Amino acid sequence: MPYEFLLTDINQNLTEKAIGTDKGLAKIGDSIVNLTYSVAKSIYLTKNSTSNKIVRTGMKVSKKILAEALKDANMKKFAKSRADAHDLADTVESLIAYVWLSEKMSTKEIIEFLSDNFSGDINDRIQEVNSARLAFTKLLNLIKKFLIVI
Amino acid sequence: MPYEFLLTDINQNLTEKAIGTDKGLAKIGDSIVNLTYSVAKSIYLTKNSTSNKIVRTGMKVSKKILAEALKDANMKKFAKSRADAHDLADTVESLIAYVWLSEKMSTKEIIEFLSDNFSGDINDRIQEVNSARLAFTKLLNLIKKFLIVI
Repeated sequence: MPYEFLLTDINQNLTEKAIGTDKGLAKIGDSIVNLTYSVAKSIYLTKNSTSNKIVRTGMKVSKKILAEALKDANMKKFAKSRADAHDLADTVESLIAYVWLSEKMSTKEIIEFLSDNFSGDINDRIQEVNSARLAFTKLLNLIKKFLIVI
Repeated sequence: MPYEFLLTDINQNLTEKAIGTDKGLAKIGDSIVNLTYSVAKSIYLTKNSTSNKIVRTGMKVSKKILAEALKDANMKKFAKSRADAHDLADTVESLIAYVWLSEKMSTKEIIEFLSDNFSGDINDRIQEVNSARLAFTKLLNLIKKFLIVI
C-alpha cells in the first residue's frame, strides 16, 4: 500500500520545518520508533546472549535520547525555534515517520539498521542510553538524503 | 530480515497460552497495534474526508477495545485463567506480535486490513470504539489460522 498520499500537503510546500514539526507525523513516528527499537533490542540481546537465551522486549525510547541524537546529527534546523528536548524528540519522530510513509525505509530496514549499530552491553542502562543515542544519530545521518527540500 | 528466531522457544512448546501470555510479545505487539491502528485511522479519515483534508494521527488503542475483541472472536483460551481486561488486551497484542514476527502478516497488511474494515464516522468517539472493536475482532478471526497449536 502506498502511503505517499498521506504526505501530499507537506510535499506541496516542502520545507525542513514542514517535515520536522508536523504533530500527526510525530505521533505516527512515536510508534515506529518504539516498535523498531523494541525489535532491534530483542534481536541484539538474543544474538549476543551468552546462554542462548531468547529475549523479547518492548521499550519506549526516551525523549532525551532522541533529542540528543538530533543535536548530534546537526539537524536542529528541522525543529521549531526555541525547541525544548520534547520538541526535538518530536522532530526525530516526525522525520522517521516521513521517511517511512514515503517508503524510503521500511520497518525492517530501520530495525536492521538500529540492531547493526548497537554496541556494548545494552542490559546496562548507561550503556544502553549511549548505544541508542549513537544508533539514532547514525539513522538520522542516513535519512538526511531523503529529506532534501527545495 | 527473518524474525522467526525470536520465537524459537515458544515454537518448541507451542500451546495457546505460550503464544498468548508472553510478556515480551505483548510489549512488541503493543507498538504494532498502535502503529498499524494510527496509520489505518489516518488512511480511513483521509479517504473519507469530504473536504479532501489529509489527516495524520496517532492513537493508543485502549485495552478495553482489545479485550472485547478477544472475547468477540471467541479466543479467550489464549489468555491466562481469570484474566482481567488488561490481561485480555495483552493477549491480543501477543497474538498480533506472534503473527507479525512469524511474517504471516506484515505491518502493511495489518494496516490495510484494519483500514478496509473500519466503518462509520470514526471522528465520533463512540463510533470509533465500535468500529475499532469490530475491526480487531475480524483481524483476530483472520489470524486464527496462523495460531494452530499441536
